[in-house]
Amino acid sequence: MNSPSERTRVRRNASRAEYAPEIVNGILDANRICHAAYVESGEPRIIPTLYMRRGAYVYLHGNRQSALLRHLAAGGVAALSVISVEGVVVARSGFHCSMNYHSVVLFGQGEPVPDAEHEGVLEQFVEALIPGHLKRLRRATPQELAATLAVRMPLHEASAKIRTGDPIDDPNDLQADVWAGVIPLLTAVGLPVSSGDLKAGLEVPDYVRAYGVRP
Amino acid sequence: MNSPSERTRVRRNASRAEYAPEIVNGILDANRICHAAYVESGEPRIIPTLYMRRGAYVYLHGNRQSALLRHLAAGGVAALSVISVEGVVVARSGFHCSMNYHSVVLFGQGEPVPDAEHEGVLEQFVEALIPGHLKRLRRATPQELAATLAVRMPLHEASAKIRTGDPIDDPNDLQADVWAGVIPLLTAVGLPVSSGDLKAGLEVPDYVRAYGVRP
Repeated sequence: MNSPSERTRVRRNASRAEYAPEIVNGILDANRICHAAYVESGEPRIIPTLYMRRGAYVYLHGNRQSALLRHLAAGGVAALSVISVEGVVVARSGFHCSMNYHSVVLFGQGEPVPDAEHEGVLEQFVEALIPGHLKRLRRATPQELAATLAVRMPLHEASAKIRTGDPIDDPNDLQADVWAGVIPLLTAVGLPVSSGDLKAGLEVPDYVRAYGVRP
Repeated sequence: MNSPSERTRVRRNASRAEYAPEIVNGILDANRICHAAYVESGEPRIIPTLYMRRGAYVYLHGNRQSALLRHLAAGGVAALSVISVEGVVVARSGFHCSMNYHSVVLFGQGEPVPDAEHEGVLEQFVEALIPGHLKRLRRATPQELAATLAVRMPLHEASAKIRTGDPIDDPNDLQADVWAGVIPLLTAVGLPVSSGDLKAGLEVPDYVRAYGVRP
């Protein structure tokens, strides 16, 4: 899996490309939002959406009327992209200023999630988004299950592109009196805000307080 | 500008759609990375890239060999998407769990940046990425200018989609013993890391120390 097809081969800065499944999967598992692109009437469409990886598939879900999801459920192709940006690369020339990032592009044909797995996949989406929450919840109603469409794309054609570390400046610029380095960017988790209509007496549970804190 | 064409009209949760230019521009100006989708050989392609808004255009730039940039410079169409995720919405049912976000989708035909504006646009990209840095830098060399392609897309067809605030649960679930609310997510700026080959005696400048801190 994850061979560099012509569609997912990294063409710019190819030395930053990775095709190993453990690299691709690691980036996919560390993020939650992807952008999905597909073709409608010959024109590009793009939409951000939640995803999760399970095994050799990426799963998407949402409203059953979603044009993207219907397209994928019918076997249409899509290109998915995931990126996390970890820093601003401050170089000694504008040309070499950049960003540090981990990104994945996936190309593939969609397929519907089998009916027998539908409810389980929706439950895994809840657990993927808010670990620990699912077991506190009632089960989905038949109406909720019917209103939601889940699809998946195989991870056959995926590539990762990664930039890390210092700026790479022209040798001629290294003695310039210009500071160079990296400004780290990271995602922070704020204190939970209880809903205005929260039932009296409920406290913020541990799995919410610990959100995003890795063991 | 920013009328909801059939291509950018928000179809799911239309009540979360915004088309006013000040809303769209505000979201564009608060972010730096977009995803661009275009069609190549009938198939969708997607790529994350830096952008900036100036007036009624969104600008992209990069290596002159980039397939996306060449496509746009030749007048090809693309769909761009920008999203910032601000929170995880913890609801009392899986169905209503969600995320809070500000997003923009832009559809349009590309055009090359006029030659007379090429160097200025590249300088504005540096200033947009690292405010205060440009004036410390040497000018771009003819080789650097020639290696870089800058294109722009008019903001004619753009829409924003926004979700903020509490979960919206089914009335029947409000008395469940399940905590509900929002877990805020935000981008944090770490302490600058000087480049390993930094010239001796250079200190981190104020504009780097203050990165991302708004007045």
